[in-house]
Amino acid sequence: MELPLREELRGIQPYGAPQLDVPVALNVNENPYAPSEDVVADVARSVAEATRSLNRYPDREARALREALAAYLGHGVTADQVWAANGSNEVMLQLLQAFGGPGRTAVSFAPTYSMYPEYARDTATGWVVGHRAEDFSLDVEHAVSVVKEHRPTVVLLPSPNNPTGTALPPDTVGSLAAATAEVGGVLVIDEAYGEFRRAGTPSALELLSATPNLVVSRTMSKAFALAGARLGYLAASTEIVDALRVVRLPYHLSSVTQAVALAALRHSAELLGRVDDLRAERDRTVDWLRAQGHDVADSDANFALFGRFDDRHAVWQGLLDRGVLIRETGPDGWLRVSIGTPEEMAAFRAALVDVTGKGTP
Amino acid sequence: MELPLREELRGIQPYGAPQLDVPVALNVNENPYAPSEDVVADVARSVAEATRSLNRYPDREARALREALAAYLGHGVTADQVWAANGSNEVMLQLLQAFGGPGRTAVSFAPTYSMYPEYARDTATGWVVGHRAEDFSLDVEHAVSVVKEHRPTVVLLPSPNNPTGTALPPDTVGSLAAATAEVGGVLVIDEAYGEFRRAGTPSALELLSATPNLVVSRTMSKAFALAGARLGYLAASTEIVDALRVVRLPYHLSSVTQAVALAALRHSAELLGRVDDLRAERDRTVDWLRAQGHDVADSDANFALFGRFDDRHAVWQGLLDRGVLIRETGPDGWLRVSIGTPEEMAAFRAALVDVTGKGTP
Repeated sequence: MELPLREELRGIQPYGAPQLDVPVALNVNENPYAPSEDVVADVARSVAEATRSLNRYPDREARALREALAAYLGHGVTADQVWAANGSNEVMLQLLQAFGGPGRTAVSFAPTYSMYPEYARDTATGWVVGHRAEDFSLDVEHAVSVVKEHRPTVVLLPSPNNPTGTALPPDTVGSLAAATAEVGGVLVIDEAYGEFRRAGTPSALELLSATPNLVVSRTMSKAFALAGARLGYLAASTEIVDALRVVRLPYHLSSVTQAVALAALRHSAELLGRVDDLRAERDRTVDWLRAQGHDVADSDANFALFGRFDDRHAVWQGLLDRGVLIRETGPDGWLRVSIGTPEEMAAFRAALVDVTGKGTP
Repeated sequence: MELPLREELRGIQPYGAPQLDVPVALNVNENPYAPSEDVVADVARSVAEATRSLNRYPDREARALREALAAYLGHGVTADQVWAANGSNEVMLQLLQAFGGPGRTAVSFAPTYSMYPEYARDTATGWVVGHRAEDFSLDVEHAVSVVKEHRPTVVLLPSPNNPTGTALPPDTVGSLAAATAEVGGVLVIDEAYGEFRRAGTPSALELLSATPNLVVSRTMSKAFALAGARLGYLAASTEIVDALRVVRLPYHLSSVTQAVALAALRHSAELLGRVDDLRAERDRTVDWLRAQGHDVADSDANFALFGRFDDRHAVWQGLLDRGVLIRETGPDGWLRVSIGTPEEMAAFRAALVDVTGKGTP
């Protein structure tokens, strides 16, 4: 029989970068530093403890975790203003389940994170895309005019942006929040890569207390090196959090996930130390790429978008043939490389010189 | 400002039974037997191992876990026919994201699991409810007529049913699958409590290979005593599984969840031994309730629905005052008690006799 698959899903391939087994994986913006044995031991101990009552449902409200996340975020954020779910993916889906839906519109500005239209599709929310400037910054006038025209209930804006690395200046966030409020919408600033910001780039968290329609989302995947643990979260007004509590599936966050995230948060000093190393390595990579004559987008994230190549696929394939997997994403001609360890970046540089015949590693 | 909360969510309270700290919790059909220290040690070891690469994303396809679940299910089910997610909740949501949605209808038959309409609501799927007979069985003629009239793309039917405990005979499942196929829909048999079936009650898995529009869903929450780990799964045709792969959020299942579930599956013999104890305790509880003059629905699950009470809330409250928490759910006048340990059931019996002044514990 023919399955009653929704029309818009027919012929669609599941989202995701190829999961290939390669020596140097710089394709999905993972943190290259595995948790230390200290962290491993604390996680194992915490999970063993949680397992002793795993026959019981988890704390549906994840109170202890939300307290710890609020303390980590600072900026006066309280546990009631924090929400957590299985990765930013689920946080975003819940936002659109609560504030999007049939007859409503979500807006973003391309090039941007390629999952956003999937969240909209999966919640039957209309999807409108404005554009970014040539240098991937956001022109406020254009952005505000898109919001005024389409009256979205949700605006999704990453800062730093993926895949370009571009952070939003606070006054842009403020103007967008005001324009979105005027049409009755919520502005989501997706700070998945927030901890990698360069010195002097502020977080949207600073605007939170004065901006009731602002949501700032984060993840433990990147700065906390926990991509495998799936823990996304956000800070917003308690009213917004209460709306998410209505659409969340009950017990959505397992006792084990809560225990793992709490254990990692106890080691934030150690884990964030690695973030400083990665920021320095990012800046070195950007400088090196520019020195070889490549265009590179300014990056506040743990990756760099560089180009332009007449045949970017050939460059991507050439790197892969040399054991270095990066991501063929973003506008035509550009490629994205995640920031790895110094050794991994040396392998990347050598392979790129080899493939392009340009520069010295 | 007023938030753009979807109309149908306004004034709605988050779903879920009260999470109260009581000596005897028999309210959410948890397995009363905590994992043994053997299981705890295996889980801790497996999670420690997974944590060593937790900076990397999980296997998006959860291959090893799906292999193990297929082996556990038997009936010739292969890994390609198995899908897993964060609890049955997420499995069901994904089914409705793929096969429901705006302009489509899902059907069930009341009294039944109270989360079903929430899955429909969260996916903007229309929701139609037929009814069960006085004894909570399903009249096939009525069920088929509802399907023919409303042409649902998804029919959700738990077997055993929650909160009544009623299992579906295989010929009912066959007739419903045929009627649903005729209108182009998928029939989901929700066997969350499948392992607790009485001897002689078959699983819908037996019909799977001959029924391309049939989905059989399961959970590790109950029989595997892993409510806190959030692992739901299903068996269906590979075409149905492929549809779910399109709507699933990428990396929806954490490396840790996969590791915990795999560890528990290695201990299935031990964990399912407890299921036999619970089935025996269930039968004793049903017999005892009937001997005291209560009406009790036949149960193939790890709970019993009993009544009827003119004021069920007073009975529920009386039990709670005596430290025994059960669930005020199902048709008016009935109460649901989960099957606990022999000691917990003794406490329940004593409290019920005390509250109702009826029978002897």
